[in-house]
Amino acid sequence: MPNSEIQHHCGLFGVYGHPEAVHLTRLGLFAQQHRGQESAGICATQGRGIVRHAGLGLVNDVFNKSILETLRNPIVIGHVRYSTTGSCNEANAQPLLFNYAGGQIAIAHNGNLVNAALLRDEYEQHGHIFLTTSDTEIIMHLLAKPSHMQKRNPLPHVLNHLQGAYSLLFLFNDRMVAVRDPFGFRPLCLGRLANGATVIASETCALDIIDAHYERDVQPGEIITIDRGGVRSEMFAEPTRPMAAQCIFELVYFADPSSNVFGQNVHLARVEMGRQLAREAPTDADLVIPVPNCARCAAMGYSETGGLPLGRGFTTSHYAGRSFIMPEQHLRDIAVKIKLNVIRESVCGKRLVVVEDSVVRGTTTKGKMGALRKAGATEIHLRVASPPIRHGCYFGIDFPNQSELIATGRSVEDIQRYLEVDSLQYLSLDGMLSCVAGGKDKYCTACFSGGYPVPVDHPVSKFAMEKHQFRMFEQ
Amino acid sequence: MPNSEIQHHCGLFGVYGHPEAVHLTRLGLFAQQHRGQESAGICATQGRGIVRHAGLGLVNDVFNKSILETLRNPIVIGHVRYSTTGSCNEANAQPLLFNYAGGQIAIAHNGNLVNAALLRDEYEQHGHIFLTTSDTEIIMHLLAKPSHMQKRNPLPHVLNHLQGAYSLLFLFNDRMVAVRDPFGFRPLCLGRLANGATVIASETCALDIIDAHYERDVQPGEIITIDRGGVRSEMFAEPTRPMAAQCIFELVYFADPSSNVFGQNVHLARVEMGRQLAREAPTDADLVIPVPNCARCAAMGYSETGGLPLGRGFTTSHYAGRSFIMPEQHLRDIAVKIKLNVIRESVCGKRLVVVEDSVVRGTTTKGKMGALRKAGATEIHLRVASPPIRHGCYFGIDFPNQSELIATGRSVEDIQRYLEVDSLQYLSLDGMLSCVAGGKDKYCTACFSGGYPVPVDHPVSKFAMEKHQFRMFEQ
Amino acid sequence: MPNSEIQHHCGLFGVYGHPEAVHLTRLGLFAQQHRGQESAGICATQGRGIVRHAGLGLVNDVFNKSILETLRNPIVIGHVRYSTTGSCNEANAQPLLFNYAGGQIAIAHNGNLVNAALLRDEYEQHGHIFLTTSDTEIIMHLLAKPSHMQKRNPLPHVLNHLQGAYSLLFLFNDRMVAVRDPFGFRPLCLGRLANGATVIASETCALDIIDAHYERDVQPGEIITIDRGGVRSEMFAEPTRPMAAQCIFELVYFADPSSNVFGQNVHLARVEMGRQLAREAPTDADLVIPVPNCARCAAMGYSETGGLPLGRGFTTSHYAGRSFIMPEQHLRDIAVKIKLNVIRESVCGKRLVVVEDSVVRGTTTKGKMGALRKAGATEIHLRVASPPIRHGCYFGIDFPNQSELIATGRSVEDIQRYLEVDSLQYLSLDGMLSCVAGGKDKYCTACFSGGYPVPVDHPVSKFAMEKHQFRMFEQ
Amino acid sequence: MPNSEIQHHCGLFGVYGHPEAVHLTRLGLFAQQHRGQESAGICATQGRGIVRHAGLGLVNDVFNKSILETLRNPIVIGHVRYSTTGSCNEANAQPLLFNYAGGQIAIAHNGNLVNAALLRDEYEQHGHIFLTTSDTEIIMHLLAKPSHMQKRNPLPHVLNHLQGAYSLLFLFNDRMVAVRDPFGFRPLCLGRLANGATVIASETCALDIIDAHYERDVQPGEIITIDRGGVRSEMFAEPTRPMAAQCIFELVYFADPSSNVFGQNVHLARVEMGRQLAREAPTDADLVIPVPNCARCAAMGYSETGGLPLGRGFTTSHYAGRSFIMPEQHLRDIAVKIKLNVIRESVCGKRLVVVEDSVVRGTTTKGKMGALRKAGATEIHLRVASPPIRHGCYFGIDFPNQSELIATGRSVEDIQRYLEVDSLQYLSLDGMLSCVAGGKDKYCTACFSGGYPVPVDHPVSKFAMEKHQFRMFEQ
Repeated sequence: MPNSEIQHHCGLFGVYGHPEAVHLTRLGLFAQQHRGQESAGICATQGRGIVRHAGLGLVNDVFNKSILETLRNPIVIGHVRYSTTGSCNEANAQPLLFNYAGGQIAIAHNGNLVNAALLRDEYEQHGHIFLTTSDTEIIMHLLAKPSHMQKRNPLPHVLNHLQGAYSLLFLFNDRMVAVRDPFGFRPLCLGRLANGATVIASETCALDIIDAHYERDVQPGEIITIDRGGVRSEMFAEPTRPMAAQCIFELVYFADPSSNVFGQNVHLARVEMGRQLAREAPTDADLVIPVPNCARCAAMGYSETGGLPLGRGFTTSHYAGRSFIMPEQHLRDIAVKIKLNVIRESVCGKRLVVVEDSVVRGTTTKGKMGALRKAGATEIHLRVASPPIRHGCYFGIDFPNQSELIATGRSVEDIQRYLEVDSLQYLSLDGMLSCVAGGKDKYCTACFSGGYPVPVDHPVSKFAMEKHQFRMFEQ
Repeated sequence: MPNSEIQHHCGLFGVYGHPEAVHLTRLGLFAQQHRGQESAGICATQGRGIVRHAGLGLVNDVFNKSILETLRNPIVIGHVRYSTTGSCNEANAQPLLFNYAGGQIAIAHNGNLVNAALLRDEYEQHGHIFLTTSDTEIIMHLLAKPSHMQKRNPLPHVLNHLQGAYSLLFLFNDRMVAVRDPFGFRPLCLGRLANGATVIASETCALDIIDAHYERDVQPGEIITIDRGGVRSEMFAEPTRPMAAQCIFELVYFADPSSNVFGQNVHLARVEMGRQLAREAPTDADLVIPVPNCARCAAMGYSETGGLPLGRGFTTSHYAGRSFIMPEQHLRDIAVKIKLNVIRESVCGKRLVVVEDSVVRGTTTKGKMGALRKAGATEIHLRVASPPIRHGCYFGIDFPNQSELIATGRSVEDIQRYLEVDSLQYLSLDGMLSCVAGGKDKYCTACFSGGYPVPVDHPVSKFAMEKHQFRMFEQ
Repeated sequence: MPNSEIQHHCGLFGVYGHPEAVHLTRLGLFAQQHRGQESAGICATQGRGIVRHAGLGLVNDVFNKSILETLRNPIVIGHVRYSTTGSCNEANAQPLLFNYAGGQIAIAHNGNLVNAALLRDEYEQHGHIFLTTSDTEIIMHLLAKPSHMQKRNPLPHVLNHLQGAYSLLFLFNDRMVAVRDPFGFRPLCLGRLANGATVIASETCALDIIDAHYERDVQPGEIITIDRGGVRSEMFAEPTRPMAAQCIFELVYFADPSSNVFGQNVHLARVEMGRQLAREAPTDADLVIPVPNCARCAAMGYSETGGLPLGRGFTTSHYAGRSFIMPEQHLRDIAVKIKLNVIRESVCGKRLVVVEDSVVRGTTTKGKMGALRKAGATEIHLRVASPPIRHGCYFGIDFPNQSELIATGRSVEDIQRYLEVDSLQYLSLDGMLSCVAGGKDKYCTACFSGGYPVPVDHPVSKFAMEKHQFRMFEQ
Repeated sequence: MPNSEIQHHCGLFGVYGHPEAVHLTRLGLFAQQHRGQESAGICATQGRGIVRHAGLGLVNDVFNKSILETLRNPIVIGHVRYSTTGSCNEANAQPLLFNYAGGQIAIAHNGNLVNAALLRDEYEQHGHIFLTTSDTEIIMHLLAKPSHMQKRNPLPHVLNHLQGAYSLLFLFNDRMVAVRDPFGFRPLCLGRLANGATVIASETCALDIIDAHYERDVQPGEIITIDRGGVRSEMFAEPTRPMAAQCIFELVYFADPSSNVFGQNVHLARVEMGRQLAREAPTDADLVIPVPNCARCAAMGYSETGGLPLGRGFTTSHYAGRSFIMPEQHLRDIAVKIKLNVIRESVCGKRLVVVEDSVVRGTTTKGKMGALRKAGATEIHLRVASPPIRHGCYFGIDFPNQSELIATGRSVEDIQRYLEVDSLQYLSLDGMLSCVAGGKDKYCTACFSGGYPVPVDHPVSKFAMEKHQFRMFEQ
C-alpha cells in the first residue's frame, strides 16, 4: 500500500433511463470506491425537479436502505470524492445542486481547475456568493451568467473558460451531459445496459459490476448529451484542441486493475511495467515479493521476465479499509500497522526483490522495508515500477507538498540510504512510456518530469478556496 | 395541545465573547426548542474563518458530544427551525454560511420575507445561483451586490429592500449583528452574561437558562452590532418607520410562558386573557379544565375570575415530544393519540368548561372533545382564549391554508356544531387586545382580523421557492 | 420535579391473542414509560419458541421500525425498567428468557424480592449458575427445580418461596401468566380488547392508550393464566393470606394521574391529599404554586380548599425527558437546570404557598426554593402532600440510602432551616390515609412509618447481587 | 473467495498483566477477524469483579471509542465468533460471563462440543436453566456442580466430561486459564510481550500485530494457568491421551497466511500444496490464475513447479468485507457479485489453469468459472489444492449439510460437468498430508476422508440447542 500517501481524487457515475438507476449508481460508485472515500452522493430526477442525497463516508454508509427504497428516479448522476480542492465537509460533497434562472443543475466533477480561484475572485467582485469551498461551484456561476445563457449553446462557451482537469457529469431536469476536458487528464467512458440505458463512468470496472457494455471513451474535448432524443456528441475545443495529456498515474496506481483506461487494460499495463523494470534493473536474488496491493501486477511481470520465483511477504487485512479513509497522519500510522503483517517464514534468510509501484513520501515504504529486515531478509533490493516523483500535481492528484516528496532534490543513492535498502532502482520515464498505449506524447507525466501541459503560474493548494477567504478578511 | 396544527417558526440565539459560547448556544437553543424542531445549527468563529454545524432533528440530536468537545469558538450564532418557506431538508438548515467578495457571512432568520420570490427572480435573471430553497438566501445576494458593497454602511440599505418579517442574526468574521424588522413582527432581545459577554435571543427564557441578565428588546427597525469595540445601535428605518405590528400569536400560543415578550410576561398575559374570557363568557358548570399544555394559563385565569374550581381532564406524555416533530399527517394522528389521556374519573358526570388557547383546523380539538364526552362529561362548554382564526399568516407562522381553517367562512354556531360541544365562545378581539402591553395598535392581529400591516399581493406558500423552480422548467 | 431523586421501578404489559400484539405492547409500555426509563424489552411467541428483544433506552429507542415490522407474534409480554436490584446493563434488561427442562420461560418482574440473595446463595451451593445480577433470575431456578416441576401445579408452590414485592408476567410457549404477590405491593390489572384479547398492565393508563376495557385488578395472591382455554384464576396464598400492603407511594407519586390504582383514580387521590393538606396546614399567602409536575394535582386541591388562587411558578421543558434517564448525579444536576425555568413575573413580590408531593433528599427542592426566592418571592411556605420520608423501601422503590433522606433524624424545623423556606408543613400520616380507598390498613406506609409488612432482617441494597459476587471472592 | 461457502468459527485472545490489555485485545481480535465476523466481545478484570462488553458486528464496531477509553483492566479475554452452535444473537456473543458459588467466570470457546446437547438434557433434568443456545454454557454448569467444586482441582475433572473440539480461555477474578482439547483440533498459542505480560491467541498473527513474542503452542490436553504466581502448565488427559487430530482445514483455508499453525507457516504449507498439485496434476496451459484470495499461495506453488506464468484473473473489492458477514443466502449472492471482477484482457483467449483452495457447495466456484468463460478464456482447467469435501464437520467448521456438498455422492467427472470446466483435478489426500508438518497421523481429515477421531453418533446441527427447546415443548 505504498500509495496510502497519495490521496485519491474522485469517481463519476451516471445512468440515463433505467427504473433502477439509483441502485445501479450505488453499485457503480461502489466499484469506484477506490477513487474516493471521503464522501458519496447522487442527484436524481424523473423530469420534474432534481433531488440530492450526499454525505460523508463510504458508498455503503451514505446509501442506506431508506434511500434505496425511496428514490426511484430513472436519471441519476453520482460521485465519490476525495477532496483535491476544498476540505472534507458535507457542503463540499458532490454532486452539487444549484438553482438558477434556467432551473436546476447538478454537477459532479473529477479533476482540478487551476483557474478556479481567479474566476471566483472575479465573480465575487460582481456580487456573486459561494456556498462551498470547492472549485466546482465556479462552473455553475459561469453557466448562470446572463450573457452565457443567451447563447444558443452555452455549455461549450462556458467550458472554454475552464483551465485544468475536468471530467464532468451534469444533470439537468431533462438530460444528462458528460464532458471531458481537451487534455483528457481524467478517464471517462460510455456504456450501455441491456435495456438500452446509457451509462457514464470514470472507469470501466463500474460498467462491469452492472453488466453494462463498454462502448467507447468520451473523447478529450467532447460533450456528450443524453436525453429523450438519444445520445449526441459535439467537440467543444476544436479546432485548437491541444495534444492529449492523459494522467499516466491512473495507469501506475490509481485505476482498478480490471479497468480499461486510455485504451488499455490497467493490469496488463502494470505487468508490462514490471517486465520492463526487470529488463532495466535485473537482480540476483531468491524471491520477488510485491508490496501489496497495487504492485502485485508489476511484481508478476518482474518475476516472469526476471526469472525469479514470485513469493508473498505480506498479508493484508480485509477489514481495515484503505488507509486514506483516516486523513489524520496520526491515524494513518495505526492504519498501516494494522493492515500489513509480514510472513516471516516466507522472507527469513532470503535475498529479496521488493517491487513497489511508486514511492511518494517514502515513510511507509521505509517502514515496510524495516519490517522485512526485522523478519530476517538478508538482502532487500527495492525496484520501483515508475520513475521518481519529484513534482506536484495540479490536475487532480493530491500528492503532498513538493517538499515532502522523498525524491525532490534527492539522488537515487540518497533515497536508497534513507530507505535503508541494499539497492534501489526506478523504472525510467521512457521505459514506463514504452508500456502504455496510444503514443507516449498523449500522457501527462508532469509529476515525474515537471513538464506541465497547462501553465500553472500560481500553484494552487487543496485549500486554495479556504485560504482565499481568510486572505479576503485580513486585508 | 391544540396547536399541534400550527407549525412553529424559528428561534435565534447568539453569544459574543465567551469561551463556552458553543455550549451556551446549545442551551439557549434548547430553551427555545418549542420554536422549531425540524433542524438546528450554529455558525462559530474565533476571528479567522467561520465554521458551520447544522442538521435535521432536535438540538440534543444535532449537538452531539464530539461537536461540543471540538468547537471552542467564542463568537457563535445558532438557529432552531420549523420551515415557513422551503421544505425540510439539510440544505435549508440554518444558519446559512456564504462566501462572497467581502469574505464569509452566516445568517440566521426568524420570520418570512414576502418579497423573496420576486427578488430571487430578479437576481436569477442577472446570473445568480441559489443553493437553498429558503427565503433567507436572498439577503446574502443583496449584501454581495457590488453597488451595495460600495456603500459606507451597506446593511441598512440592504434591509430596506426586504419586505415582511425578519428577526436576523448575522455572523461576520469579526462581529455579530442583530436586526429586527421595522414592524417588529418577531421578538428579539439582548442580554448580558456575568463575564460581560453579549447574548441575543428570540425569547428571554433562553437568557434565563444560562443565567444571562436581560437588558432590553432589540427595537423594531434597529441594527445592533457587537464587536471588539462593544455594542453599537443604529435605526435603519427612520424616519418613515411604520407603527409596530408585533405578532399577537406569540402571546396567545407561541412563546414560552416564562418569557417576557413585547414588554410583558407571557404567562401573565395568558392568565389575563383567561380572566377576560370569563368576564365575556361566564358559564354555569362544575369544573374548568384546560386543554394541555398551552391553555393552562388561561384556564387559571378563567377559574379564578369565573369562580369555578380548576380541574385536570387530561394527562400528557413526557416522552412524546410535541407532535410537530412528525410532519406527516398520518404520523401526527398517532402522535396526538399517544400524547393525551383523559382522566376519566375527573370528568365523568361533570359539566365542564374546557379552555383552549386557540382553534386552528379544529380536527384535534374535536377529537379531544369527543374523548371527554366518551369519558362521561355531561356538558362541554368550550371557551377559546383568542378570537376565531380566519386568515393566513405571511409573517412567519405556518398556519394551514385558509381553506383549512375551521373558522374561515363559518359562524361560531357552525363551529360549535362541528366540534359537537354544548356551547362555544371565543374571546373578542378587543378583549384580547385589552390584555396586552404597549397599546393595542402595536400588534399584528391579521390572522384574526385580516388586516395585514404589509400588502400581500401574491400570497406566498411555504414551498414558493420549490414551485418556482418547477415553473421555470416547465416553460 | 421533586422526585427526580426517586428512581422509578418497573412497568409490565402483556397481550394474549392479538395479531398486532407487538405493536400494542409497544404502546402499552410507552404509556408506562414513567415507570422505568433504563431499558425496555419484549418476549413474544406464536406457540413455537419464544423470541426476545430488549435493550437499554426508552421504548421508542428500543422498538425500532425493523422490530415492529418483523415481529408479528400474537402473544407478547413487555417490560420497562428502572433497576431496583442489579445495575444498569443489557443483561439485566427484562423480560428475561430462560431455557430449562420444561422448555422456555420468559419473566417480567415489577417489585423487589427481599430473600433473593439468600435463595441465590442456596442455589449456587447446589451448583447453579446465574447470568444476571437481577433478583428476578432466582424465580426461574425455583421453577426449574425437579422437585417443583414434579408437582401437578408448580407455580403456586414456587411463589410461596418468594418474599417481598412481585407483580409478575410469565410467558410460556402456550400461555401467559400474571401474578401479584399476597401483599399486593405493586398494582396489576386485567383488561380486554374489542377482539376479545386479554391484556395485563401495571397501570390502567396503558389500557387506555390501546382502547382496552378495564375489567379488574389482579388480586393480591392471585395467579391468572391465559391460554387457548381462556382466563383462569387461582389464589396461591390461601388460607393464610396476609393483609394487603399496597404501596401508598404509587398514589403519592409514582402512578400516572389518569390511572386507577388500588381502586381509585390517582389524580383525584392527589387532589384530595391537597385538600387535606389545606385543612391541616392553612396558610395566609397570595398564591399557590405547584412544583411541577406531580404536585399539580395536590396544588389544585390545596388552592380550592385553602381559598387561595392557583398560579404557575415554573415552566418545564418538553424536550428534556425526566431527569432519571441520566443516572449519574453530575448529569442529573444539569438535567434539573435545563428542565425548569421560573416565571419571574408570576412570583415576584408574592407570598407563595409552594405545594410539593414529597421531599426525598431535599437537594433539588432546596434548589427550586432558592430559584423562587431569587425571582423575588417575598415568602415561601412549603407544603408537602405526604409525610416525611424517613425509612428505606425494600419493595421496589429505589429511594436513596436512609442516611441521604433529608427527613431521617431531622425535625421538620431542621428541614425547614435546611430548605431555607419561611414555613414547612407535611401532610400527616393519618391525613394521607384518609384520602385513599379501601381502608387505611390495606397500605404499606413503611417509608413514612418504618412499619415494614415483611421482616427485612438484612436490608438489601440495589447492588446486593453484585456485592455478593465480590464477597464470595474475597473470602 | 471459494470459501465464502464455509462459515468461519471463532478466534480467542487474552492478555494477562498489561495496563493496555483492552486495547491490545482489540488489536489481537482484529488480526483474527477472519475467524469470526458475527460478534466480538471481551471480559476484563482488575481482580475485583469481571466486566463484560460484547456485541454483534465486527471488532471495530463493537469496540467503540467509549469502551476503549473506559476499560483499563489489566487482565482481559476476548472472542470473535461465527456461530457453529447457536444462532446469531446477542445473548450468544462470547465471552459468556457467569455467576456461581465460586464467584464469576468468563469463558471464550473455539470449537464445538459433540456431547453438549446430551449434557444439557441431563442438567436440565436436574433443574438447571440455560440462558443461551450456545454449547459453551454447559461447561459452566459442569464447573458449578458441587461435587466438582469440592475437588482440589476441578478443571481437569470437568474437561474430561467434554467431547469434541475446544480451545478455551477462562477468566477468573484472579487468573486466566487456557485449555486445548486432547485432540488439539483448534490451534492455540502462547506469547509474551516486552513487559513480560502473557498473551494467548488462536493464531500467531495476533501476536505479531502487538509485537508479542511467540513462545510455544498450547499442547493438546494442556491447561495453562496464568496468575500472580506466573505461568503453570498441567496435562489433564494423561495417560490415555489420544493421538492429536489437528484440523487440516486450518492450513487449507482458515488460518491467516502469516500465522504459524500446528508447527508450520500457513503460507508456505499452501505454497507446498500448490507445488504438490502441480506434480500430481500438470497441465498444458498459458497461465495460472488463483481464485482470490486464499488460493493465491497455492497458485504460486503451482506456477513455479508447473512452469507456467502466474497471472491475475480477478480483482477484489477492498470495501466489501468477506461475504460471510451477510449470513442470508440472498445477500451472499449480491456480496459475491460486488466483490469480484474479472480482468477481461488478462484471460481473454487464454488457456487457464485456475487454482482453488477447496470447493464446498460449488455454486460460487461455478459462477466464477462462468465469468472467466464469458470473458473469453478458451480453456479452463480447475485445480483444487485439497481433496473433495464429502463429509460434515462436527468440530467447529460450519460446512453446509452433507447433502449440499458438491462432492458428496458425485464423482470428479460429475463435478467437472457441473462446474462446466474443461478439466478438474483435486490434490490427493496423501499429497496434501505430505505437505504438512508433524506427521500425517496428527491431523483430522474427516471432512475429506470421513474418519472422525471422536464417534459422532447423533450428528449435531448448528441449531441443536434451539431445536432441542422446541422438541421439549412439543411432547
